[in-house]
Amino acid sequence: MCQGFKASGIHAKIKKKNAKDLGLIVSDVPAAVAGVFTKNQIKAAPVLLDMERIQSGVCCAVIANSGNANCCTGEQGIKDAVRMAKAAADKLGVAEEMVLVSSTGVIGQFLPIEKIESNIPQLFDALSSDGFVDFAESIMTTDTIPKKISRVVEVAGKSFAITGVAKGAGMIRPDMATMLSYVCTDVEADSSTLHELLTDAVNLSFNRITIDGDTSTNDTVLILANGKSGASLNDAAVKKAFKTALEEMLIELAKMVVKDGEGVTKLVEIKINGAASDEDAEKMADTVAHSPLVKTAFFGEDANWGRIIAALGRSGVSLNPDAIDISFNDIMLIKNGLWCGADAEEEATKVMKLDEFEVVIDVHLGNGSSSCWTCDFSIDYVKINADYRS
Amino acid sequence: MCQGFKASGIHAKIKKKNAKDLGLIVSDVPAAVAGVFTKNQIKAAPVLLDMERIQSGVCCAVIANSGNANCCTGEQGIKDAVRMAKAAADKLGVAEEMVLVSSTGVIGQFLPIEKIESNIPQLFDALSSDGFVDFAESIMTTDTIPKKISRVVEVAGKSFAITGVAKGAGMIRPDMATMLSYVCTDVEADSSTLHELLTDAVNLSFNRITIDGDTSTNDTVLILANGKSGASLNDAAVKKAFKTALEEMLIELAKMVVKDGEGVTKLVEIKINGAASDEDAEKMADTVAHSPLVKTAFFGEDANWGRIIAALGRSGVSLNPDAIDISFNDIMLIKNGLWCGADAEEEATKVMKLDEFEVVIDVHLGNGSSSCWTCDFSIDYVKINADYRS
Repeated sequence: MCQGFKASGIHAKIKKKNAKDLGLIVSDVPAAVAGVFTKNQIKAAPVLLDMERIQSGVCCAVIANSGNANCCTGEQGIKDAVRMAKAAADKLGVAEEMVLVSSTGVIGQFLPIEKIESNIPQLFDALSSDGFVDFAESIMTTDTIPKKISRVVEVAGKSFAITGVAKGAGMIRPDMATMLSYVCTDVEADSSTLHELLTDAVNLSFNRITIDGDTSTNDTVLILANGKSGASLNDAAVKKAFKTALEEMLIELAKMVVKDGEGVTKLVEIKINGAASDEDAEKMADTVAHSPLVKTAFFGEDANWGRIIAALGRSGVSLNPDAIDISFNDIMLIKNGLWCGADAEEEATKVMKLDEFEVVIDVHLGNGSSSCWTCDFSIDYVKINADYRS
Repeated sequence: MCQGFKASGIHAKIKKKNAKDLGLIVSDVPAAVAGVFTKNQIKAAPVLLDMERIQSGVCCAVIANSGNANCCTGEQGIKDAVRMAKAAADKLGVAEEMVLVSSTGVIGQFLPIEKIESNIPQLFDALSSDGFVDFAESIMTTDTIPKKISRVVEVAGKSFAITGVAKGAGMIRPDMATMLSYVCTDVEADSSTLHELLTDAVNLSFNRITIDGDTSTNDTVLILANGKSGASLNDAAVKKAFKTALEEMLIELAKMVVKDGEGVTKLVEIKINGAASDEDAEKMADTVAHSPLVKTAFFGEDANWGRIIAALGRSGVSLNPDAIDISFNDIMLIKNGLWCGADAEEEATKVMKLDEFEVVIDVHLGNGSSSCWTCDFSIDYVKINADYRS
């Protein structure tokens, strides 16, 4: 259990349906904080506010809502975000700058701030050290399951805990992936070290997943460290163990986000090997991972490798068409740019029926490699996104 | 009628279903020829062959098949493309280098070359000056209608004709759009002038449309000019009229391609005005036009402008979020980055129920502008592409 943190999630009637839509995370003591935010130039009001407030490096609480993104809401939006944070800060008895705020949902409607303010007492009443699943539920939009994982790490005679939650669903792509993710840890840390470790971990996880290639205006990943465990990142062994745990947990959360993407039936890892550079490999992996034709073939469980080849060919990376191998898990379907035959295709098609599999592509140009996680493009993706606002 | 050209299309059993799959265009006399081809690095065998042969600037015939792309077929693929051209050249009694060849369909399977060779007599028997619709049918894959337009232009006491055919359907995006398009004209021209005019026209038409963001390995646009009308591009008035007609016709064909895209129910023009430069405008138009979230909202007839704003924000172009206007046809829905209210949205939603409409975006940064044509992303798109090979 992550010491000194409590969380909650309640229904404040921001969403029409009866589902949790307002959440709170509180640290008993001021925590070191770091964050990474959407690179979309259109940033929601809470993102703009958090980017400013996080400069102080400390934070006592995060308040978040779903059902409304408070984005493209102009000055009124900023005022509402400030009011939302202030409502929590007042109740907590701390300066309003010590509270961060997130919103997710429909863009362009004003936040129903009175509903949030009037539900502050219930939100605080619900706080519990077991409240992270409730919090994770409160930030869901078209997600179907709350995403929360915890880990206790023992190292050098000490132990610390990390708890992470995330929400995703649509608008997921590299250069910010998860719309919202929060990590709480009782390790002792300064905010600049936290920022460095968080950035590295996000680059390995949330920035390597894609659902539909769109990037949200509200993407936010925050990490809070309150030092309650007594284990400190100043201890090299603790720092190393923390870094590893954080990366593994964010990768796990990122994969949970893809698997719970809108209409997703399959989680597919695209691995590129043998590229001239890691950058080239990343470009190829991203192009394959984003191709609607590749993704609909995944949905159709069709080992349509021609679409993969075509995506590689337009990725902007120099290729030798006669030196491309493609495998589905350990079934090699293409060797030196040519089809390995009907038997191989039959086996590859079996692989595609799995919930999770990998497509391994070797372009035989060098030692560069990269991988990313993608998903299939299903009929339900279209249904969900055609109907989302109605 | 385009003098001196004949065309045909027959069923040669390359496709399993009983539909035309082999086509031929013949000019009575050697024609000047120019072409533009896919920028995908993975190029199909017929594309590689045509790129080489077109250097001569003359051509007597084009033979094309659907049902098999002859791509990723290695040396065998090149040999088959050469045989396919030779079969037509022999029958026609011209050098084999005077025949160009195109293929479209599934990638990675060897061409059933014997079926093509054995059907050459029937293919020639079917040749007719009215055969362009049959030809257009013979190159269809998941297209639902053959795309053919003709125009006769009178200028300076002379007249000339242009006939264009195209096939599209999937894998349509800028930097080659239509998988295959052929333009025949009886104007007199040299191949370098043809190439210049064709490139300009393609940049205004096929390179400004998108269906799913994928680029084909087989994309080809060819133009043949046989001079039979007596009107020459050396006459400035003829050249001007020809340029205008060619551009208008390719735009019309490009729009037909989008409208007949896989599962498409709507043709939408994305117009960007007020950008700092035309290049910036093009980037923004392309990003909006490719966004799956925007395209599913079109399908859902949901004026979800937040998704448009989010796409603009990740287009890589500097923006002022508070100076963005968005209209659906003449209904302004967003003014200075803010929503114009429920009445405007109701009117915009009515616009979205049309088969064709435009989204006009003004970013108030300068005089740059660009537009492109896109379509909605429908349930049928996914169905068609999940099942395409089965």
